[in-house]
Amino acid sequence: MRNFKLTIEYDGTNFNGWQIQSQGERTVQGEIQKVLLQVFKQNVTVFASGRTDAGVHALGQVVNFKVRSKMSPRDVQNALTAYLPSDIVVRAAEEVDLDFHAQYSAKGKTYRYTILHRSYASAKERNFSHFYPHKLNVVKMRKEARALVGKHDFKSFEATDHERAKHSTVRKIKRIDIRKKDHWVTVEIEADGFLYKMVRNIIGTLLDAGSGRLPVEGIKGILEKRDRDNAGDTAEPQGLCLVEVKY
Amino acid sequence: MRNFKLTIEYDGTNFNGWQIQSQGERTVQGEIQKVLLQVFKQNVTVFASGRTDAGVHALGQVVNFKVRSKMSPRDVQNALTAYLPSDIVVRAAEEVDLDFHAQYSAKGKTYRYTILHRSYASAKERNFSHFYPHKLNVVKMRKEARALVGKHDFKSFEATDHERAKHSTVRKIKRIDIRKKDHWVTVEIEADGFLYKMVRNIIGTLLDAGSGRLPVEGIKGILEKRDRDNAGDTAEPQGLCLVEVKY
Repeated sequence: MRNFKLTIEYDGTNFNGWQIQSQGERTVQGEIQKVLLQVFKQNVTVFASGRTDAGVHALGQVVNFKVRSKMSPRDVQNALTAYLPSDIVVRAAEEVDLDFHAQYSAKGKTYRYTILHRSYASAKERNFSHFYPHKLNVVKMRKEARALVGKHDFKSFEATDHERAKHSTVRKIKRIDIRKKDHWVTVEIEADGFLYKMVRNIIGTLLDAGSGRLPVEGIKGILEKRDRDNAGDTAEPQGLCLVEVKY
Repeated sequence: MRNFKLTIEYDGTNFNGWQIQSQGERTVQGEIQKVLLQVFKQNVTVFASGRTDAGVHALGQVVNFKVRSKMSPRDVQNALTAYLPSDIVVRAAEEVDLDFHAQYSAKGKTYRYTILHRSYASAKERNFSHFYPHKLNVVKMRKEARALVGKHDFKSFEATDHERAKHSTVRKIKRIDIRKKDHWVTVEIEADGFLYKMVRNIIGTLLDAGSGRLPVEGIKGILEKRDRDNAGDTAEPQGLCLVEVKY
């Protein structure tokens, strides 16, 4: 048995997220496993560093799968490239130790959220950004974002439709970089891990900060309340991209 | 009667080009005229600075149409924005003199062609770039491109499926800028006008220059032959974008 690690890019627009669905909807995992079945003539389960939701993109998602085969990583990459649809691209393939697991071995992840801040939308980037034609103060966003950096209980930013019993909601955010270039505002967040919908809930709250709709206690106060109802709305999925996974 | 000028952006991926088709295929002109009929309750013909082919994009296409109406340009823009599909965006609307015509009044146009030069494709940019995983010498491309700048007979670069009797094939290219950033090579061409498929035929020939497949006489020799058979292949449409039209 051998263990292959792939770094993949995908355009999440036409996928119902990463995870394979019983209803047979188009998913990234489903497409990859379908091709692996063709290539290896056996059912192969692919594990990702984490699920991405419908419409969310990846530039550097990492996955692994175990298979009995004599193919080189380069041959595996070429075979996948030949059969995969063009909205999934294998950027790199390598063989790793059998104990490597894309999710459990991950030490950190970086997500990027892209906001288009001007009065008219973009045709080209409509599926890759959140169009925001309202007032937005980037300096205020940066100031409020500081409260999120470090080790905190992020329960206020976890989707309530995913509450699991007794799991830890403590995570460590290493950095939040908010950049503005022309009409584009990008928020890059690196953490040791993320709760379900945590990035999109943080972005929704940062948009509140930038538009002056944040409660007086600010993001620091929202964090302390440990209650999803206090944070902002979940930002749209299409602005989100999984940029990198560190091991 | 009033004359409205619009600057529009579109993602050409899901259009069968600019020009309305008798077969009812989806076109940019067709979509806009459909919305104008809704807004003004009358048939309105929209003229563009030039046609774009299926798969070709526009960031700054300019169009005009004449209509009897009391709407302000801002109201026209808002109405179009409300009804147009998200792959067409109205960036600006203004009222212009009745003798303004998007095509005949144009003084110059700029097209940009985007090439992805690396070993693996891009999922996100697959519809907005030409993936070129082969050898490509950008310095050679720049050197050969110089022969194209200036006033020349570009007959060698005109699509032969569009030959019209006795029309002039002389155009003036003001500049060709070839830039490389990371894995992206962009070719920007500004001219007083372009022949049918001229940009894509020039790009195909520049790719030959960059990969060492150009005949010994170079682009200068190809120009002088005034024969389409001597130039390179027509580059794929999805790398092409109409960036700006000058008046």
